[in-house]
Amino acid sequence: MTRFRCLFIALIGICLYSALLTAQPNPVYLKTSKEIVKSALQERRGYQLLGELCQLGPRLSGSPTSLKAIDWAKSTMERMGLDRIILQPVKVPRWVRGEVEAATIVSSTRVNWRPLRVAALGGSVGTPPEGITAPVIEVQNFEELKSLGERVKGKIVFFNRPFPRDVVTTFRGYGMTVDQRVHGASEAARLGAVAVLVRSVTTSEDNVPHVGGMRYAKDVPKIPAAAIGIQDADYLSELLKEDPELTVNIQLGCENQGEVWSYNVIGDLLGSEYPEEYVVVAGHFDSWDKGQGAHDDGGGCLQALEVLDIFKRLNIKPRRTIRCIFYINEENGIRGALAYAKMADSLGLKHVAAIESDRGCFTPRGFSVTADSVVIERIAGWLPYLRQAGIEWVRPGGSGVDVAQIKKITALIGYVPDSQRYFDFHHSEKDVYEAVNPREFELGAAAMSILTYLISEEGLANSPTHSTH
Amino acid sequence: MTRFRCLFIALIGICLYSALLTAQPNPVYLKTSKEIVKSALQERRGYQLLGELCQLGPRLSGSPTSLKAIDWAKSTMERMGLDRIILQPVKVPRWVRGEVEAATIVSSTRVNWRPLRVAALGGSVGTPPEGITAPVIEVQNFEELKSLGERVKGKIVFFNRPFPRDVVTTFRGYGMTVDQRVHGASEAARLGAVAVLVRSVTTSEDNVPHVGGMRYAKDVPKIPAAAIGIQDADYLSELLKEDPELTVNIQLGCENQGEVWSYNVIGDLLGSEYPEEYVVVAGHFDSWDKGQGAHDDGGGCLQALEVLDIFKRLNIKPRRTIRCIFYINEENGIRGALAYAKMADSLGLKHVAAIESDRGCFTPRGFSVTADSVVIERIAGWLPYLRQAGIEWVRPGGSGVDVAQIKKITALIGYVPDSQRYFDFHHSEKDVYEAVNPREFELGAAAMSILTYLISEEGLANSPTHSTH
Repeated sequence: MTRFRCLFIALIGICLYSALLTAQPNPVYLKTSKEIVKSALQERRGYQLLGELCQLGPRLSGSPTSLKAIDWAKSTMERMGLDRIILQPVKVPRWVRGEVEAATIVSSTRVNWRPLRVAALGGSVGTPPEGITAPVIEVQNFEELKSLGERVKGKIVFFNRPFPRDVVTTFRGYGMTVDQRVHGASEAARLGAVAVLVRSVTTSEDNVPHVGGMRYAKDVPKIPAAAIGIQDADYLSELLKEDPELTVNIQLGCENQGEVWSYNVIGDLLGSEYPEEYVVVAGHFDSWDKGQGAHDDGGGCLQALEVLDIFKRLNIKPRRTIRCIFYINEENGIRGALAYAKMADSLGLKHVAAIESDRGCFTPRGFSVTADSVVIERIAGWLPYLRQAGIEWVRPGGSGVDVAQIKKITALIGYVPDSQRYFDFHHSEKDVYEAVNPREFELGAAAMSILTYLISEEGLANSPTHSTH
Repeated sequence: MTRFRCLFIALIGICLYSALLTAQPNPVYLKTSKEIVKSALQERRGYQLLGELCQLGPRLSGSPTSLKAIDWAKSTMERMGLDRIILQPVKVPRWVRGEVEAATIVSSTRVNWRPLRVAALGGSVGTPPEGITAPVIEVQNFEELKSLGERVKGKIVFFNRPFPRDVVTTFRGYGMTVDQRVHGASEAARLGAVAVLVRSVTTSEDNVPHVGGMRYAKDVPKIPAAAIGIQDADYLSELLKEDPELTVNIQLGCENQGEVWSYNVIGDLLGSEYPEEYVVVAGHFDSWDKGQGAHDDGGGCLQALEVLDIFKRLNIKPRRTIRCIFYINEENGIRGALAYAKMADSLGLKHVAAIESDRGCFTPRGFSVTADSVVIERIAGWLPYLRQAGIEWVRPGGSGVDVAQIKKITALIGYVPDSQRYFDFHHSEKDVYEAVNPREFELGAAAMSILTYLISEEGLANSPTHSTH
């Protein structure tokens, strides 16, 4: 055999490999994918439903408006004609903000000063009615806090580390900053602090407090914690440079009121061939009590529900059961996710995949998948269909905190929209319906629909069902 | 030779090909790319300059504010310490909107009606002071118009074809709708119409008139043309269904006032090794006279200028000359682009590449390249660097109407941000600074900077310089 023949065979190898990389898409799948995108963009049914939901008000776990919204969700699924609707009872913590929420400078070397815009962090204890009055001490992080030692005692600790501007993926920036909001109070209390103010964790330049959950460690006193608008955080920092003895009074009327019953809302479109196999689409239905929880995560829920409605509109009969889950209590406890996972486990439900939307309703970028690498490759092979809705990539990565509780499942999938604007709105009064663009929202729903359709048609077999735990 | 050996050789072929596909990126380029992104997101200098520019007001070709803005651009480039600044004189048409702009229903079967929100299309002739009063006839397209024949005579033609919701790339939807705005007046005048109203070409659900250029055919009378807000377009359509004889009065105070001098603004960072080779980054500096021309295209210009400023901030000495061009008169004549191309041709300037940003300042998606396929592949090979700024793809495609006038150039490149929101703002009072997100703007500037840097370092040789005409 000559060298030329070797070269020739090598070339054939290259060609075969190239052919594999550029395999022709299935025309039926391609047609259906295009119809899904057209229906989503044209009808905007999910987006309209988001408008209805947002009018009901924010949906903090256990609040009266959250229960009203759960009623709305159930009757919306009924009107949609889903095959099975389940309200799964879940005990959730009830925390209320109360009427009073203020931070006032009571002594400074300046003659005039303005009140500070603050809002209690979710789960925080309140202050006595007269508030807590103490000198303020500013720190950037827990290391600096610890280095101050005794000096923290009796003080209000002001965590002022800014959201890093220069990190491209904002969720990474969030991860680099949010520790001061979640653990700041207990870390400060450990050293004798009496309250904490935390710079709002946001990418925007607003003065709106961005709230969110905080957790108390078991072994230290519970002290009040509030977010402060970033303009006022800068202002307070400036005042502290002039007067390190500056004293502030904080009044917070919030309180924890034990536990109450709430619900996960589950709606199914039964599979025609494998009704006992589930493909889940999900978001979390609870929100913080500022704004309307439009991006976080009413939008994610209604993108998930839009998947089922698109199937009905286009008369797609799924081979496997498509299950839409509106999880309760993601923001402060993930009780809904734990309850669903427990039920699924005890009933031995067969979950093929679960797709979660909880990163805002912005323009589609990709899907992030936790699964065996063969499964991830298989999903990536569907890019010619997913691209119809603007999806650019399928990569290994995290899904979402709610679906990730499911113990036995072949693929956990996170819908990944563009992240640049999410933390402008996140956990604040700015997260309202008007902040959600209908085209971006519906393209996301279409992307989730296409992926759900393909998993329902093909399953994710040729790979072992593996435990993610 | 056994079959196994054949298989083995084929496998080597596959491996080599795979290795080629996953070549390790150059560490210096990768480091510089990351520094560019960090500097853009952290400093936000281009975004700050956009704020300064927008405060000056809209920049319609030939208007006093456009000349003021050109002064600002020149002094901004001087302050930036660019090596060479050129104001290239260009004669541009001067069109003014005037004070009066109204459309009123003068007879309808309804008792009450509201005035219609309209705005003259750029280049339209005005009406007599008392306006034009005539019955309105609604059409969807030129075919329907022609089929009406004699019935169009003496009427106001109302073009009411909506922007197609279900097309994913909004620029394609725009292309499917904008003919009624550009050519509607002359097509209607051909059949004896006295004026036209055109449904605003927008993706949003607002009632704001979205304006834009229109052109008169030479062989027919010039009749006035105005855009109408889409809520009012729907309202007018509804009224016409009730009363096909409905009559409207249109008053437009606009007029064409001949030609005046204006300028392209050009700023260079001289190349250290090949100063006579140009890599152009560009936008168009003129805008319509509604809003502030923030996305269209003040933002594109300041992304281009940010490229040069980033080079200066990071002390990158380009091997080739980086030329920033703020073209004048893209919106109604592309006179600036024609003048620059003519000068470049007559001086025999050597243009390696030109990158234009004129699709809004939204989150980066890709670069669209007009060049020999070998050049496009080469640019696509830089994706590991471009991805640092969120670029997902490099594809063959159009660049931008301004740079595309350059006759001899190796690569014409369009920066392609996400298109979903562009036509919500386009050519309307909504296109203001606040509508531009700093992170999205700066990521776009960073993407352009990385590509400019790589072209400046490497050139685009190994490929013939080809004429794009």
